[in-house]
Amino acid sequence: MKPIVTSALVAMLGMFLSAHAAVGANAPISKATEACLKCHRSMSPGIVADWERSRMSRVTPTAAKSMIRKKRRVSFDEVPRELARVVVGCAECHTMNPKKHQDTFEHNGYQVHVVVTPEDCATCHPVERQQYQGNLMSHAYGNLQNNPVYRDLVDSVNGLQSFGDMKTTYRIPDHETDADSCFYCHGTVVKATSMKTRDTEQGEMSFPVLSGWPNQGVGRINPDGSKGACSACHTRHQFSIEMARKPYTCSECHKGPDVPAYKVYSVSKHGNIYSGVGKAWDYKAVPWTVGKDFTAPTCATCHASLVVSEEGETLAERTHQMNDRLSWRIFGLIYAHAHPDSPDTTIIKNKAGLPLPTELTGEPVTAFLIDAKEQGKRAKTMRRVCLACHSQGWVDGHFARFENTIKTTNEMTLTATKLLLSAWEKGAAKGLAQKDSIFNEAIEKKWVEQWLFFANSTRFASAMAGGDYGVFANGRWYMSRNIQEMCDWLELKLKKRQ
Amino acid sequence: MKPIVTSALVAMLGMFLSAHAAVGANAPISKATEACLKCHRSMSPGIVADWERSRMSRVTPTAAKSMIRKKRRVSFDEVPRELARVVVGCAECHTMNPKKHQDTFEHNGYQVHVVVTPEDCATCHPVERQQYQGNLMSHAYGNLQNNPVYRDLVDSVNGLQSFGDMKTTYRIPDHETDADSCFYCHGTVVKATSMKTRDTEQGEMSFPVLSGWPNQGVGRINPDGSKGACSACHTRHQFSIEMARKPYTCSECHKGPDVPAYKVYSVSKHGNIYSGVGKAWDYKAVPWTVGKDFTAPTCATCHASLVVSEEGETLAERTHQMNDRLSWRIFGLIYAHAHPDSPDTTIIKNKAGLPLPTELTGEPVTAFLIDAKEQGKRAKTMRRVCLACHSQGWVDGHFARFENTIKTTNEMTLTATKLLLSAWEKGAAKGLAQKDSIFNEAIEKKWVEQWLFFANSTRFASAMAGGDYGVFANGRWYMSRNIQEMCDWLELKLKKRQ
Amino acid sequence: MKPIVTSALVAMLGMFLSAHAAVGANAPISKATEACLKCHRSMSPGIVADWERSRMSRVTPTAAKSMIRKKRRVSFDEVPRELARVVVGCAECHTMNPKKHQDTFEHNGYQVHVVVTPEDCATCHPVERQQYQGNLMSHAYGNLQNNPVYRDLVDSVNGLQSFGDMKTTYRIPDHETDADSCFYCHGTVVKATSMKTRDTEQGEMSFPVLSGWPNQGVGRINPDGSKGACSACHTRHQFSIEMARKPYTCSECHKGPDVPAYKVYSVSKHGNIYSGVGKAWDYKAVPWTVGKDFTAPTCATCHASLVVSEEGETLAERTHQMNDRLSWRIFGLIYAHAHPDSPDTTIIKNKAGLPLPTELTGEPVTAFLIDAKEQGKRAKTMRRVCLACHSQGWVDGHFARFENTIKTTNEMTLTATKLLLSAWEKGAAKGLAQKDSIFNEAIEKKWVEQWLFFANSTRFASAMAGGDYGVFANGRWYMSRNIQEMCDWLELKLKKRQ
Repeated sequence: MKPIVTSALVAMLGMFLSAHAAVGANAPISKATEACLKCHRSMSPGIVADWERSRMSRVTPTAAKSMIRKKRRVSFDEVPRELARVVVGCAECHTMNPKKHQDTFEHNGYQVHVVVTPEDCATCHPVERQQYQGNLMSHAYGNLQNNPVYRDLVDSVNGLQSFGDMKTTYRIPDHETDADSCFYCHGTVVKATSMKTRDTEQGEMSFPVLSGWPNQGVGRINPDGSKGACSACHTRHQFSIEMARKPYTCSECHKGPDVPAYKVYSVSKHGNIYSGVGKAWDYKAVPWTVGKDFTAPTCATCHASLVVSEEGETLAERTHQMNDRLSWRIFGLIYAHAHPDSPDTTIIKNKAGLPLPTELTGEPVTAFLIDAKEQGKRAKTMRRVCLACHSQGWVDGHFARFENTIKTTNEMTLTATKLLLSAWEKGAAKGLAQKDSIFNEAIEKKWVEQWLFFANSTRFASAMAGGDYGVFANGRWYMSRNIQEMCDWLELKLKKRQ
Repeated sequence: MKPIVTSALVAMLGMFLSAHAAVGANAPISKATEACLKCHRSMSPGIVADWERSRMSRVTPTAAKSMIRKKRRVSFDEVPRELARVVVGCAECHTMNPKKHQDTFEHNGYQVHVVVTPEDCATCHPVERQQYQGNLMSHAYGNLQNNPVYRDLVDSVNGLQSFGDMKTTYRIPDHETDADSCFYCHGTVVKATSMKTRDTEQGEMSFPVLSGWPNQGVGRINPDGSKGACSACHTRHQFSIEMARKPYTCSECHKGPDVPAYKVYSVSKHGNIYSGVGKAWDYKAVPWTVGKDFTAPTCATCHASLVVSEEGETLAERTHQMNDRLSWRIFGLIYAHAHPDSPDTTIIKNKAGLPLPTELTGEPVTAFLIDAKEQGKRAKTMRRVCLACHSQGWVDGHFARFENTIKTTNEMTLTATKLLLSAWEKGAAKGLAQKDSIFNEAIEKKWVEQWLFFANSTRFASAMAGGDYGVFANGRWYMSRNIQEMCDWLELKLKKRQ
Repeated sequence: MKPIVTSALVAMLGMFLSAHAAVGANAPISKATEACLKCHRSMSPGIVADWERSRMSRVTPTAAKSMIRKKRRVSFDEVPRELARVVVGCAECHTMNPKKHQDTFEHNGYQVHVVVTPEDCATCHPVERQQYQGNLMSHAYGNLQNNPVYRDLVDSVNGLQSFGDMKTTYRIPDHETDADSCFYCHGTVVKATSMKTRDTEQGEMSFPVLSGWPNQGVGRINPDGSKGACSACHTRHQFSIEMARKPYTCSECHKGPDVPAYKVYSVSKHGNIYSGVGKAWDYKAVPWTVGKDFTAPTCATCHASLVVSEEGETLAERTHQMNDRLSWRIFGLIYAHAHPDSPDTTIIKNKAGLPLPTELTGEPVTAFLIDAKEQGKRAKTMRRVCLACHSQGWVDGHFARFENTIKTTNEMTLTATKLLLSAWEKGAAKGLAQKDSIFNEAIEKKWVEQWLFFANSTRFASAMAGGDYGVFANGRWYMSRNIQEMCDWLELKLKKRQ
C-alpha cells in the first residue's frame, strides 16, 4: 500500500483502506509503553510518529505468528506471555532482558536500557538473529579490531601525522576518530561508563553516559555482550521492510571506492529498472513475488529476501547471512577468494603466519575457506534467483565472465604486490622484514588502492554488470595506471639513492 | 500494479481536492500579466506552464497574508495597492522597481526587466530577504572576487596554461570561463551592456544584451545592485517550496569534492530514510511538522525551515541565514573555524596580513569570528531540531565526536601546511616569500586538496554521519596518503637539486 | 496533489482507467506466443510478467498504426499479414527472420533465436532503425575495435601487466575481459558457437552456446549481422518508453569520468527539477508536450524525443541519431571537434596518417567532419527546444559560454600534448617515433586523463550547466593540476637520466 493522497481523499476512501490497518486496530498497547508515550510523545515527537507508522505498533506477536509460514515476519516458537498480546512498543524493546544489559537504568519506575540489541530482537525473530550470527557483518568489529594486519591499516588511515626534520610520524588514533571513521560502519563498543544527572521537564533525572555512542554499525558490541545492530538496516523506529529492501539502506556503507556495490547497482540494468519503474512495486509483501511485486532485483532480492514465483515456488529462502548465496568473496583483502568458513576471520593464519585469507602472493588459505562443493551450492542458490528472468545461457555467460574477472583482478593485484616486495627488498620502503607497517608509506598506499579500490571496483562491476566501474570509474584503467606509477616511483626512488 | 491516476480520475475527484486550489480560484490576473501571457503562452510555453502550476499564480498577496502567522509564506507589512489583490504574475515581478533596474527596457508599452532580484522579491518577502543578506551566500561573489588569496585560487584553477622551454605559464582567465566555472555557483555580475534588435514573430523588437547571463548563483550581482538570486533555490517559475526543501536543490552546488554535503547526506541514515520512504511526506506544509509531515530531515529541515512539533511547539524558526544554526564553519578555508561574524569576509585580516579567517598555521583570527557564546547559542538552536528524534545522550555523543573531528582534521591540515612551508623554505617551490602564487605549483595543489577536499569531506561526513566520506571516499585515507606523497615529493625534489 | 493510490481505489475506479488498456483488451495472442507462455510463465516468470505489463502485449501493430501520425509509436508501411492482428509476443520477435539469424535453433517445433536485433525490431519500427544506423552508437563496436589507436587504448586498459627485472610487460587482453570492460557498453560480437544439450523440466533439449553473451551494448554485432541493441535503452521486456525517457537509462553508460553526462545532469537545474517534481510528469505520452507532460528536460527531451507545445507546434522531431541536434562532439578523442560526418569513424585519417578526427595538435580533419552549415542547422534544432522555456538572450549567452569552453579545454589538452611530445622527444617516454604504444606509460596515462576525464567533464558541465563538474569535480582544477604534475614528472625524470 502506498498511502499518498490528500487528507480529503483519505477521509473519503477510508472504508476501502481500512483492511490493512485493521490487524492492529484494537491491538492493545502495554501499560508500560503507554507510560513511555505519555512524556515522549512531546519530548521525542519524531520517534513516536515513526513508531506509530510502523507495523510493530499495530500488530501483536500472536497476530504476527498467526499467518501461514511464508507470510510470517516473526520466527519465534513462543514469546513471554506478557508480550504475546500487546503490540511491540517502546517498553517491550527497551526493557527487554534488563539484567543482561549493562546500560540498564531506573527510569520512572522501569528498568530501561538505551541500546536495543539483536539479543532483544531475537525474542520474536530468533531465526533471523541466528542467521545473522553467521554473517561476516556481525563480526565486523572484531574482524577489524582484533586482526593485527587490518588494525594496522586502521591506524595508518586514522592516525594523525606530524612533520618535522623532513620526516613524518604517525600517532595512534583516538577512540572518537576510530568511531567516526572505520567503526562507524563496522560498529563500536558501546558501554555505560557512568551516570549523569540532568534537569529535564520532568525534574532532575539520571541517565547513563554511553561510550561509543551513537552507533548503528553492523558489528556493534552491545552493552548486553551481543554483536550487531538490527537497526543498521531495519531503521528505527519504523522498522520498515520497504526501507530494508531498497538499495539506499545498503548504500550507507557500500558506496565508497572500497566497496562500491551501490554505485555499480545504480548504473546496472537492474538499478536502471528499479530507478525507472520501481516506484510502482510492492516493497512490503511477504513473501516477495517476482514479476508481481517487482520486476528487477534490489540488493535484498539477491542477497537476503524470501523470493517466490507467482505459482508459489520458493526461488530463495530468506537469509540474514549475506554470503549464503555467494561463492566468492570479491571484497579482496588482499585478493578475492572463496568465502571464509567462519564469520570470525581473526582465526585465520596463512603460511607466513599472517591473519590473512590468502598468502601475500595470492594463494588461498584453503583450510579456513569454504570448499568447492560449498561454493557450488551457494552459486546454485544465487543462480536460481537469476533464472527467474534470465535463460540458462545468459546466466552461464555472466558467471563465466565474472570468474575470469576474479582471476585477472587477482593477477593485477599480484603484479602490484611484486612491485611492493621489490621496493621492500631494495630498501626503497620498509615492510614486513623491517617490522614496519605495510600501510604507512606512499608506495604502500598505492598498493592498497590496487586491491581495495580498483580490483574491488572491477569485481563489483563484473558481478552486477555495472559498466564503467570496471573501466574508467575506478576500474581497470586505474589498475593499469597504478602499476605504471608504482614502477615509475620505484625507478626514481632507487636512482635517487645511488 | 501501477496506481498512478489519469486525468479522468483527477477530474472525478476534483471537488474533493479543490479546497487547496480554491484560495486563488477566482483570484484576478493583472492586465499587464494578461498582456504577457497573450504572446508568451505560445512563445515560452514551458515557463507559462510552470507558473500556472505555482502557488504564485493562484494566490494574491492579500490572501497569502490572511493566514495565521505560522502558516504565512509572506512577510510584508504592506504591499502597493495595485499588487495586493492580483495574483503574482509575469508583470508583477518583471516590471517591479523599474527605475532601480539597469536592465529595464521598453517592451510593448511596459518597462520590463529580465533579471528578477531579491530586491524585487522583498516586496512580499522582506524578512527572508533581510535574513539572506546576513547569509555568507549573498556575498559569494565578492568573497571570492575581492579576496586576493581566493581570487588567486580562482586564477590558478581557471587560468589557461602554456608549455614551452620546459616551463609552464599561466594566463589570467577570461570572464566567460570564470562564469562557467567558480562563478556559476558563486554568482556573476549581470549587466545590460547594449540593446539588440531582433526579428520576432511580433515584428522587430529590441532587447537588452546582458553580460554574465545566464546565471543563478547565490551571490549574483544584479542589475539593480542587489546581491543574490532567490531562484538559485526557489527554482523559477514554479517557485515550489517542495523543491527548495528537497536535497537536490542543495546538490546543485554542494556535491563536489570541495563541499560534498549532498553526497554525505545521501549515504547518511537521514538520507536513507528520505530516499526510502520520503515519497510519502508532505513537502508543502507550512509550518513543517516533524513526525506528521516528514520523519527524517532534509537539508532544509536542519538549516532553514520553520519546524514545529505536532503539539505546535516551534522547534526552529525559519531562517535564510544558513549559518544561523551552525557554530562551526567546517568548509575550511584553510582551516575549520568559528563562523565569521560578518557575511562579508573580505574585511578579515590575519596577523600576517592575509585576508584569511585563520593564520596559515591554523590559529583563528578571533576578532572577525563569532565568539564562544554565539557559538553556543547556534549549537543549541540546531540541537533543538535533533532532539525531536534523538535523546540528549545521542546528541551529546554525536557532537562531541564531531568537535573532535574538527580538531583532528585541522591538525592534518597543519601537517600539510608545514610540509609546504618547508618546501618554500628549502626552495623546492615558490611561495609567499617569493611573492609567487601559493596555488600554482603541483605541491601547492596537493596542499589545497588536503583541506579543500579531504579535510572538508571528513568534516561533512562527521557532521552528518556519512560513513565512508570520512574514510575512503575522499576522507581520512586521502589525508594520510597525501601527506606521505607530499613528503616523498619533497625528498625527491630536494635530492634532484643537489 | 499526489495521485498515488491503493489497489482498492484502483479497483473502485477501474472503469475510469480502462480507456488506456482497452486498446488491447481483446487483442489476440498468436498461437506461437501462447506456446511460449505455456512453459515460460513458470520457467521465466519475471520476463513474462514484464511483457504482460508492456504495451507490446496489449496492442497489435494494426492498432498501433491506426493513431494519427504524431501519436504513433510505429513507423512501418506494412507488416506481414500474420503479425498485423496479433499482439507483439515472444514468438513474434524471437522467431522473426529465422534464416538471417545464425543463432536460430529448433525449439519445440519453432525456429527460435535468442538475440532480438534492430533488424527484427525494424519490422514495426523501420524509421527508428534507419535513424539509429546513422548514430555513432550503432558503430560503437567497430569504431573502437577497428581503429588501431583506440584499440591500443583498450589494450593498455584491459591488458594484464607483469613485473620483473624492474620492468612491466603488457599482455593482450582476453575476450572475456574486453567484454566485461569497454565492450560492455560498446557492444560485443555475439555468435552461436555450438549447441549444448541440457536436462530441463521438459526433458532433454538443445540450446545454442553464444559467445559474447550476455551483452546489450549499443553497438553490438548481432548473429544476423546487424549492429546495435534496441534493448540497451528500451529495456526488455517492458520496453517502457518511460524508462527510455528517464535519465537512469543513459546513466548506464554515461556516468563515468570519461563521459559524466548523467552526473552533470543530476546537479544541473534541469536535473534538480526532474528529481524534485518529476514524479508528477507523464513519461508515456506521445508526442511529448512541454509544460503539460513535463516541465524540465530529461536526456531524451533534448537528444531524442518528439517534443511539441500545447498549441501543437512541433519543437523537435523524434530522432534516434543522437547527434542530430548536436553541432559539437564534446567527447574529445582527443580534442572536441565538429561531429564526424559518417557514424563509421574508422574511415577518418588525419595528415599524420592516424585515424583521428583531429591532428595530435588539435587541428580538425575537416574532410571527415560536418561543416559549419550543418553545425548551424543542428544548433538551431537544439535551440528550438531550449526556447520553449528560455529567452533568446538566455540561450545565446549559454551557448556563447559553451563554445568558449570548447576552445579553452582544447587549449588545455594541447598544453598536455606538448608536454607529452617533449617527453617523447627527450627520451623520457617512448611514443609514436619509437613505434611504442602512446597509452602504456604513466606520463601517457596522465595525458589521457587530461582529455578523456578532465576536459570532457568540463565540457559536459558547460553544455548542461552542471556546476562543479567544470571545477573541482574532475573539471578545471584537475586540468590545471595535471599539467603541473606532468611538468614536475618530466623535470624529475630528465634529471634522473643525467
